[in-house]
Amino acid sequence: MFQQTCIAPVNIAVIKYWGKRDEELILPINDSLSMTLSTDQMCAKTTASASSNFKENVMWLNGEKVAFDENPRSARCLKEIKRIASAKGQPKFPLNLKLHICSENNFPTAAGLASSAAGYACLVYTLACLYGVEDEELTQIARQGSGSACRSLDGGFVHWKKGDNPNGSDSLAHQVISPSSWSNMRVLILVVNDSKKKTSSTKGMRLCVETSELINHRAEKIVPQRIENITKAIKTKNFTDFAEITMKDSNQFHAIALDTFPPCIYMNDVSHSIAEFVHRYNELAGETKVAYTFDAGPNACLYLEEENVAGVVAGLKLAFPNDNAGNVEYVKGIPINGQSYEAYKFKSNGSNLLKYIIHTKIGEGPKRLEECEGLLNEAGEPKKLIQ
Amino acid sequence: MFQQTCIAPVNIAVIKYWGKRDEELILPINDSLSMTLSTDQMCAKTTASASSNFKENVMWLNGEKVAFDENPRSARCLKEIKRIASAKGQPKFPLNLKLHICSENNFPTAAGLASSAAGYACLVYTLACLYGVEDEELTQIARQGSGSACRSLDGGFVHWKKGDNPNGSDSLAHQVISPSSWSNMRVLILVVNDSKKKTSSTKGMRLCVETSELINHRAEKIVPQRIENITKAIKTKNFTDFAEITMKDSNQFHAIALDTFPPCIYMNDVSHSIAEFVHRYNELAGETKVAYTFDAGPNACLYLEEENVAGVVAGLKLAFPNDNAGNVEYVKGIPINGQSYEAYKFKSNGSNLLKYIIHTKIGEGPKRLEECEGLLNEAGEPKKLIQ
Repeated sequence: MFQQTCIAPVNIAVIKYWGKRDEELILPINDSLSMTLSTDQMCAKTTASASSNFKENVMWLNGEKVAFDENPRSARCLKEIKRIASAKGQPKFPLNLKLHICSENNFPTAAGLASSAAGYACLVYTLACLYGVEDEELTQIARQGSGSACRSLDGGFVHWKKGDNPNGSDSLAHQVISPSSWSNMRVLILVVNDSKKKTSSTKGMRLCVETSELINHRAEKIVPQRIENITKAIKTKNFTDFAEITMKDSNQFHAIALDTFPPCIYMNDVSHSIAEFVHRYNELAGETKVAYTFDAGPNACLYLEEENVAGVVAGLKLAFPNDNAGNVEYVKGIPINGQSYEAYKFKSNGSNLLKYIIHTKIGEGPKRLEECEGLLNEAGEPKKLIQ
Repeated sequence: MFQQTCIAPVNIAVIKYWGKRDEELILPINDSLSMTLSTDQMCAKTTASASSNFKENVMWLNGEKVAFDENPRSARCLKEIKRIASAKGQPKFPLNLKLHICSENNFPTAAGLASSAAGYACLVYTLACLYGVEDEELTQIARQGSGSACRSLDGGFVHWKKGDNPNGSDSLAHQVISPSSWSNMRVLILVVNDSKKKTSSTKGMRLCVETSELINHRAEKIVPQRIENITKAIKTKNFTDFAEITMKDSNQFHAIALDTFPPCIYMNDVSHSIAEFVHRYNELAGETKVAYTFDAGPNACLYLEEENVAGVVAGLKLAFPNDNAGNVEYVKGIPINGQSYEAYKFKSNGSNLLKYIIHTKIGEGPKRLEECEGLLNEAGEPKKLIQ
């Protein structure tokens, strides 16, 4: 049996990907740019095994057996990896061996945190390691699993170029700066209590491209300039410029989602209260200390530098208090130094509007793990079925 | 003493006015188009008296004494009316007489229903009647009180052309069709329970023009086509096209408000649930029976034809039930026929999310009233101080 286990990170876009020009190849209408989060707090983990004992390709995702060959996206990722392995000659094992794949996220799906990006990045990276395929074309393959997955194949800040070729060969992601270049960059994930079903990203994007009269103007006229400006801000570690562009682009993404017909609404009243909190915090501080961004759901992701974490968290506890009736800590993740930080006085928006907060930081790309850390046993069955 | 009393209607835009190119003259960056609501349910009422006994210009607004000469907008309206009266020669009375003006809305300010539009339209129309000034330039004057006031000077559907002249001389409103041309057009105003303070329209517009990268594209490329298309829909009474353009333009207005920095949020979760209700209702009906539009606040305005009122109201009572603990009727205004209408099954979004619903219809422009209906007594003092 041949086996490989890897982990891959979550990434959060600061210039948003919204809209495909090719649904099949997952080619975007505009560039996007994200920060990779540390795998210490959140990651996808995948074990892939190949064996002549296996009768068919099987996958377990978060403890549940799911279709693999029948899922066109995962099937395409495997096919592409095998194509490269075959083209390079001398594969490590026969390409016709069937696979058992087990994958899980160490963070609740409830967090709504682009779990498919981390998941497909991890799948592609793990398969690439298993088949001994080099890295260079991997972002192109991960993109065909889930668009933003291509940005989880590297650490630090990552730029996904939309590319121009109809076959997608130049729609690739590359690192802008390494995580060590801006090592004090922190992130607070604010998980909002919400049960409302949202339009899926895939459907929302398609409908937006079909019906919004603003989306093309954004993609063609606005995003290119923003990519240039935020890249400069990131390379010079100019937090003020970085924060302003990040917040503006989050708002604009939700604006074009609202301009869809029927409209796609992802932020709720609590999300907007969080944005208001951030603007107020910066106003009180007299400078930009923190930035928000929201993906296709109500949860907020706040970017801030390490020295401002204690102050912002203290403010959040006032503005969004939590009874914490269960055993769950309200603020998880990296321990917060400077608990005695005197916060600005914020009025409560109401209790328990947030489920919890995850404190994490900028991080590295995917990593190989030791065999003992694998999710499959010697028989190629999951060691445990989570959930 | 010379005295005049008039009423003027509320208007609700279907193509939204958002953004000024001249703050002083109140010149918009795009055309807008609205429907005038019947004064039977909602109106502003103003009495203006001129007398040699009056020492200064005084105004009572909704029972409260307010500055008149110190308010640049009301002072400008008076100055313009006097200028025309003077230019036409032979004024009915000396132009240096001081005025007492009393104005009130018969609907709660809480309804957030463009009360300033009806108010300034009524002020300008009343002053014009008092000074014996003809109608032709009135929309230009009302516009300088509150932009959208110019659209309340006529009934039916009204088109406010942005104009091109820097002095505003061609920024005028004119009727598209009379109320009798689409006499079965009804409106439901859904007043949302909400206490959140919103950014004022004036401030929101200015910030949007300064910071949104989408607003000019909307004003220059999108609105002109929409004005053309909705005018055609209105003239041919094509409800389906009318409804779709109306809903899209409401969404787009809120999209550019969200693209402002910091963002301006006017719709809340309940507003979005109402929009969702409307899309679902039309889906169940298999055709477009009802349209929503939202101004700079959370309240909804639904457009629909008379035969669909009973069905939509029945659906609204299921989706937005109200305990009606007070003495207030939940659905006010025009009585609803066909109470036994079998509604589609809607799940409740929660109780008391709406304060009440006003049922009204398309209506006429401002009207002169008899002297006995005036708000000022012989001494030029308010007959009653409301509120």
